[in-house]
Amino acid sequence: MNNAPLYVVGLGPGDARCLTPQARAALDRAQCIAGYQLYLDLTPPELLRGKTVISTGMRHEEERCAAAVDAALAGRPTALVCSGDPGVYALAGLALETLEARDLLDRVPLNVVPGVPAVCAAAALLGAPLTHDFACISLSDLLTPWETIQRRLSAALEADFVCVIYNPRSKGRPYQLGQALAEARRFRRPGCPVGLVRKAFRPGQEVSVHALADFDESRVDMLSLLIIGNSESRALGPYLLTPRGYANKKRS
Amino acid sequence: MNNAPLYVVGLGPGDARCLTPQARAALDRAQCIAGYQLYLDLTPPELLRGKTVISTGMRHEEERCAAAVDAALAGRPTALVCSGDPGVYALAGLALETLEARDLLDRVPLNVVPGVPAVCAAAALLGAPLTHDFACISLSDLLTPWETIQRRLSAALEADFVCVIYNPRSKGRPYQLGQALAEARRFRRPGCPVGLVRKAFRPGQEVSVHALADFDESRVDMLSLLIIGNSESRALGPYLLTPRGYANKKRS
Repeated sequence: MNNAPLYVVGLGPGDARCLTPQARAALDRAQCIAGYQLYLDLTPPELLRGKTVISTGMRHEEERCAAAVDAALAGRPTALVCSGDPGVYALAGLALETLEARDLLDRVPLNVVPGVPAVCAAAALLGAPLTHDFACISLSDLLTPWETIQRRLSAALEADFVCVIYNPRSKGRPYQLGQALAEARRFRRPGCPVGLVRKAFRPGQEVSVHALADFDESRVDMLSLLIIGNSESRALGPYLLTPRGYANKKRS
Repeated sequence: MNNAPLYVVGLGPGDARCLTPQARAALDRAQCIAGYQLYLDLTPPELLRGKTVISTGMRHEEERCAAAVDAALAGRPTALVCSGDPGVYALAGLALETLEARDLLDRVPLNVVPGVPAVCAAAALLGAPLTHDFACISLSDLLTPWETIQRRLSAALEADFVCVIYNPRSKGRPYQLGQALAEARRFRRPGCPVGLVRKAFRPGQEVSVHALADFDESRVDMLSLLIIGNSESRALGPYLLTPRGYANKKRS
């Protein structure tokens, strides 16, 4: 390989205190940093200073990846920044697809640098909503048919997974969350707790726990993540707790 | 609240370069650190020096949580360390249950500090196996009936989730992984890629991608994590890629 590395870097939820030293080192080494503007805003400014910064809008992921690959090919260590973890609804996959399409897999060394994903940031703020088996589902139907999303959500609810809802609601997609919650009500009791976290570990952070029956979807936007409990989850003070089974073990 | 805080801290996969500054700060502040010995071994030694260290064996989680709560009650900031993220198959839930059982929720401030979970560490090393919707399932039936685990696995496979298998195989449970793989073969083609990561970001790290049909389960142990692709996943050079749907989007 004669070319500079391409890093796909997870920034974590956004607070610099959640950025791993490994991610910081990759950003430090990069001469070119590409990202959606919101993610560049979450990148510590001292890591951007004096570098080529490629900023593209939302949904311009293909352009962004192509520009990052071009920069690496030109011999400049390059980082694509993602919020959370780069492997979870982010750019690790598209970076790999871009290298494949251009037959560059052997020429550009790819380094995926993991980060704290949004699901773990939200879970930490809610207490212990996940604990055991869980499923992550995005409600965005830009790249996945809505029927597939619905099928996954129903299956995960029926099999009693804790369900983590990414991309729950946007201005262009205000209706799917209502359908998803209606589906949840088929499989969970009215009091099943739903955790809502907005802007985890960022200014303006909001954390709340609601009963499924009363959940007001109008407060949800694209900066929100929802966690719907399993059949054993419950609200506990300000927390959402999914017990791991220790209590049952003692009883049996 | 008059008592010292109880931190439940995610160490990430184990390399100090994956430890967030937030987690480091919590460990720095703690006067008492409790954990399973393997996790204490992953904790940077300078953060343990001069502190009370409570080490308990595997499966002694309840003792460990009780001792940590006692230390916080005695006025000493205390950290319970977990590998990966504290909310994923780790101690955030039990810490909360312990505080509840002793009626201490209002007295001991609980701080869950997120970390890079094993699933994201493994995914980063495999390239982009997750990309989109995925389910995490533990094969350990210590706290969950095997029937529930099987039901979840079948549902997740059938609904075409990428399936992440935690705790795939131990000396005391050598048989379940074979049953899980047999179930996967019912729903996935023989060439479906299975990623195996052992000791991610630790000395002795092993990363490999296999065809489901040929997967040799004898190489799997409790330090391993498995990722079974969805119907679109494929091996790509040394990587495991689950495409996000961009290619389909272009074709349609």
